[in-house]
Amino acid sequence: MTQQLIVIGGVAAGMSAAARARRINPNLTVFVYEQGPHISYGACGLPYLIAGDIADYRALIARTPEQMARQGVTVYLHHQVTTLDPVARTVTVRDRQAGRTFEQRYDALVIATGASPVLPPLPGLELPGVFALRSLEEGLALQRFIAAHQPRRAIILGGGYIGVEMAETFRRLGLAVQMIIRSGQVLRPVLDDDVRALVEQELTRQGVEIIADEPVAFEGRDRLERVVTRDGVYPGDIALLSIGVRPNVTLAQAAGVTLGPTGAIATDDHMRTNLPAVYAAGDCAEAFHIVSGRPAYVPLGSTANKQGRVAGTNAAGGEATFGGIVGTTVLRAFDLAVARTGLTTAQAQALGYTVQTTLIEATNLAHYFPGATPIHVKLVVDDATGRLLGGQIVGGEGVAKRIDVLATALHHRLTVADLQQLDLSYAPPFAPVWDPLLVAANVAAK
Amino acid sequence: MTQQLIVIGGVAAGMSAAARARRINPNLTVFVYEQGPHISYGACGLPYLIAGDIADYRALIARTPEQMARQGVTVYLHHQVTTLDPVARTVTVRDRQAGRTFEQRYDALVIATGASPVLPPLPGLELPGVFALRSLEEGLALQRFIAAHQPRRAIILGGGYIGVEMAETFRRLGLAVQMIIRSGQVLRPVLDDDVRALVEQELTRQGVEIIADEPVAFEGRDRLERVVTRDGVYPGDIALLSIGVRPNVTLAQAAGVTLGPTGAIATDDHMRTNLPAVYAAGDCAEAFHIVSGRPAYVPLGSTANKQGRVAGTNAAGGEATFGGIVGTTVLRAFDLAVARTGLTTAQAQALGYTVQTTLIEATNLAHYFPGATPIHVKLVVDDATGRLLGGQIVGGEGVAKRIDVLATALHHRLTVADLQQLDLSYAPPFAPVWDPLLVAANVAAK
Repeated sequence: MTQQLIVIGGVAAGMSAAARARRINPNLTVFVYEQGPHISYGACGLPYLIAGDIADYRALIARTPEQMARQGVTVYLHHQVTTLDPVARTVTVRDRQAGRTFEQRYDALVIATGASPVLPPLPGLELPGVFALRSLEEGLALQRFIAAHQPRRAIILGGGYIGVEMAETFRRLGLAVQMIIRSGQVLRPVLDDDVRALVEQELTRQGVEIIADEPVAFEGRDRLERVVTRDGVYPGDIALLSIGVRPNVTLAQAAGVTLGPTGAIATDDHMRTNLPAVYAAGDCAEAFHIVSGRPAYVPLGSTANKQGRVAGTNAAGGEATFGGIVGTTVLRAFDLAVARTGLTTAQAQALGYTVQTTLIEATNLAHYFPGATPIHVKLVVDDATGRLLGGQIVGGEGVAKRIDVLATALHHRLTVADLQQLDLSYAPPFAPVWDPLLVAANVAAK
Repeated sequence: MTQQLIVIGGVAAGMSAAARARRINPNLTVFVYEQGPHISYGACGLPYLIAGDIADYRALIARTPEQMARQGVTVYLHHQVTTLDPVARTVTVRDRQAGRTFEQRYDALVIATGASPVLPPLPGLELPGVFALRSLEEGLALQRFIAAHQPRRAIILGGGYIGVEMAETFRRLGLAVQMIIRSGQVLRPVLDDDVRALVEQELTRQGVEIIADEPVAFEGRDRLERVVTRDGVYPGDIALLSIGVRPNVTLAQAAGVTLGPTGAIATDDHMRTNLPAVYAAGDCAEAFHIVSGRPAYVPLGSTANKQGRVAGTNAAGGEATFGGIVGTTVLRAFDLAVARTGLTTAQAQALGYTVQTTLIEATNLAHYFPGATPIHVKLVVDDATGRLLGGQIVGGEGVAKRIDVLATALHHRLTVADLQQLDLSYAPPFAPVWDPLLVAANVAAK
């Protein structure tokens, strides 16, 4: 019987695990060690905090340590777990503020150490004005820098989600924005080229310049003044790195936790690692990809919460499983919503599928309804069986929830013929009589 | 080999069948007989045309007879098919404008005669100012009446979809609105009481008075001045009947077409009736309800188009099936979207299910995101198996597409445990990290 649960990391997966474990077993002692100053915050809201949409950063915080304490979960901030001994079932914890180190015993352990931005080892990386954006601390620092220095030219390095979202934020704050991306392509691995073209068109329309290049140094006296690249020099007074993230696995790896092929922690469907009574969840862990049938690393708050809930349930003696992901994501890029799920054409082909693809344009509402905007739906289909392998949707309103229909279809291996049959909601303020998903399915079925 | 296809009715199902048939077989002769003056219009847009959202009624027309002619489909307006001889394979057609009658031979026939509003046989029904709203003609007449007479008090009789939508339209045009409903409940058979309460609250907040009563007469000198009810007298200068619709089956029935238990035309999954080479589609036909396993009558433009497409494909010698409906509908009621799919609690109980229900409130976007509004999700679940039987969602933005995830779940018999696993899209501008559907599934799973 588990008596004492330790959770390492208190953001999404960790807090979800801790809260859930106490609900499953109200007699459980639950300690959460978080190395930073905040827990349980919506990191995905940071671009909108910086843009000024959210007045107070505290709105991003779902639960405070005090609220958790009332639920029976004891949270330690500024506490870093430095070693894990799976034989003795203890962790070594460093209290960063008090400067002391202590050991704590566990009956069950959840590793929820998250991920960190990839930082290229370039000269000048430490200059004020060079930012990554992952934690609330980094977000607040970026916000303070903007307030203090009123930068006018932002340079975004990399074309990932946070890069695109921050391009919007910087533009809305009145900055010039250049995105320097090695491939010259935003959201490269997650979208097909034809869908990406729609996104890049919107970015360009909104004044974002996309440049195929890569940084070699950050330069400036007291703070950033320019980014030197392979091919040139870009003056800029704020830079944001969006090259990707990597799972924080140093602690786990040192303790003998097995990593998967993605480099993140491997777990089974109960979120168990290879070590007894040790679970992992969230951005430090990989997930089974239901469409590819292989482990994948898609760090997302939604998955972290689900995995944390399953880890917490099982760690507390309950029973829950996490079936995996289908790779659904959505982001806002100015006036566009950009959503995808499953495999891209290239990903499907790499797995050996012969694919047939369909890209249609329709309107999100009845074409005659005020505010109707174009919506583009792409389906990636296994030519042999008609099974849906992936979908990408770009448009105004109504994108995010339409991708969820395709995600549901992927979870249950639906074919294009199945999609054609769906009794989807229709009323002029919400959808055309042939929903864009049905239009795409009808075209794909030909 | 089909050489000549006749389609009776040219609105949704009929035009969908005709267009599809020609695409399947470009050598086919296709005649469409439409008794009214318009084809292929979005009748669901009429409340928004009358409200002034749509400037010109022609925007509601998807395809004109001239456009159809270019696709090889010959449309006859003001032509009513009066008899059908399934042995001789002929129809008798009356040209209402020319006043002549002729016979036409068919190899295949699609009946798409639609539905008509239920009109109670009450004195004064013929008074100017008393309207039903189904056809474009009726919509235009209502619009002209409002322009000419500037009515100030609208009385809506019945609490169906069109009644709720027109309550919004009348209020937006500045009229006082009373809804007189026999049960005193809007959308009675399609929502559970707790969800209906949310809708009625919004109607009341918007100044719509809901009265449990029933009309016995319409009175007035030159036009409507008051509605006399069982319990009182309501002054009003415009009345709208929203008591329901019934399928137009007189022609079919006289020819020996079998009706189903709902009173609409029975078909198989190829949209074949019992008569050889005679198909039916749209609001005159019933549909197999995938959740109840029984025929249902849910006349909707979206279903009509799907059925028409299947009927047209098969009538032209192709092969297509219509798998049925799950009863998905959505409507706008002022600031609320109201959506439902599958079975209500009462409907499920009537079929013998022991149900467990869950009603949760969440926000449609991340709770901290500007514009986040409450959203209510109700799940109706088979207690024995955990299978989802129905869902109802009420809220601001993001309702219509969320119901579609539940509709997809119903098509494929998903359980609450399946719902919990769904990898739904997440980003603060579009959804909370736990999508309201997942919150509901998590609560229902307990």
